[in-house]
Amino acid sequence: MLKKNLFITFEGGEGSGKTTHSLLLKEYLGERGYEVLLTREPGGTVLAEAVRSILLNPNSNIVPLSELFLYEAARAQHVEEFVSPALKAGKTVICDRFTDATVVYQGYGRKLDLQLIDSLNSMASFGLMPVLTIYLDISPSEGFINRSKKLNREIYGDSGDRIERESLQFHKRIREGYLSQAEKYPERIKIVKTQETVEKTKVLIREIVDAVL
Amino acid sequence: MLKKNLFITFEGGEGSGKTTHSLLLKEYLGERGYEVLLTREPGGTVLAEAVRSILLNPNSNIVPLSELFLYEAARAQHVEEFVSPALKAGKTVICDRFTDATVVYQGYGRKLDLQLIDSLNSMASFGLMPVLTIYLDISPSEGFINRSKKLNREIYGDSGDRIERESLQFHKRIREGYLSQAEKYPERIKIVKTQETVEKTKVLIREIVDAVL
Repeated sequence: MLKKNLFITFEGGEGSGKTTHSLLLKEYLGERGYEVLLTREPGGTVLAEAVRSILLNPNSNIVPLSELFLYEAARAQHVEEFVSPALKAGKTVICDRFTDATVVYQGYGRKLDLQLIDSLNSMASFGLMPVLTIYLDISPSEGFINRSKKLNREIYGDSGDRIERESLQFHKRIREGYLSQAEKYPERIKIVKTQETVEKTKVLIREIVDAVL
Repeated sequence: MLKKNLFITFEGGEGSGKTTHSLLLKEYLGERGYEVLLTREPGGTVLAEAVRSILLNPNSNIVPLSELFLYEAARAQHVEEFVSPALKAGKTVICDRFTDATVVYQGYGRKLDLQLIDSLNSMASFGLMPVLTIYLDISPSEGFINRSKKLNREIYGDSGDRIERESLQFHKRIREGYLSQAEKYPERIKIVKTQETVEKTKVLIREIVDAVL
């Protein structure tokens, strides 16, 4: 019997295709008899979505430590109310960002202490770890940042959301952070270099997932 | 020269008169040449007020750990953006609830680990401690709870806010918690038993404050 309550996370910078590939993976696993729930962080519960709207509001003035606590608040609620019950009920959960994102954005990005983040992460996730994390690696070139900004202008109006307005330098630190995490947890985190077509990237992801199943 | 940038906090259960006595103390210190700012937790900044509205919404489903993180998020922002700059500018700050409230409500009330709370408290407050904490002690009788509920029905509609709907048992644990904190920090926390009139309680508070000045 295959274990069918897997916890899989997608990680990656802005515009790396996490949403698209989460959906494609859900489809793929669904065809193979898995009951799959898609969710995201911060989000997935009423509380966490409320926190998300504070975090992504371009007018919010948030100090880094406060930002960290908000992410952990959203996570604790999300794990307790949504992720853990789903896994216990035998479902597979695919989550768009999880604890690695906090290490990377708050640690490498905002330069908060990595040990502090690790300890809050493990509290807020009640020790839950993904069986597989797919890191979609895309080089943060100016061109990419500009595309991402354009998209955000369409969605949020003039200014782009708070996170995406960060500098290219910030986005480079994010990538370094993800690569360090992948080096630290090679069994769990798999790097997928995004290809020129969604189709090609999808194939790479399926190969990795097949190896885990 | 007197030090005129004091950080003073009020603590106490629901309906203990913190708001009234904060105002009266502000008046008193103002007459003596202090420039006094009144604030409250969770609150005092745009971010913290947004968090406050999540915390006090009777429809919010919040696990205790998530609640703790939300309070700490609001606190970190409040201290960095409001309290510390005011103290640095030579002002006195009177705050309605601070770290003791978190120990008492999340620790004694929700039964989260006290050491965990202490460590998050000291992070979120960046080590800032009040020079004086006035704990307004009122015995949580049924009559009091009912009065408090009635008031909340008028403000929030039928159900009262999320915290105040807790049981009498919960409110008793809160009082025990405050008394334990006062025992642990006798130099800083002064217990003021609320009297039959505001006037009489006010006099007790002024005596304590005079001793500190």
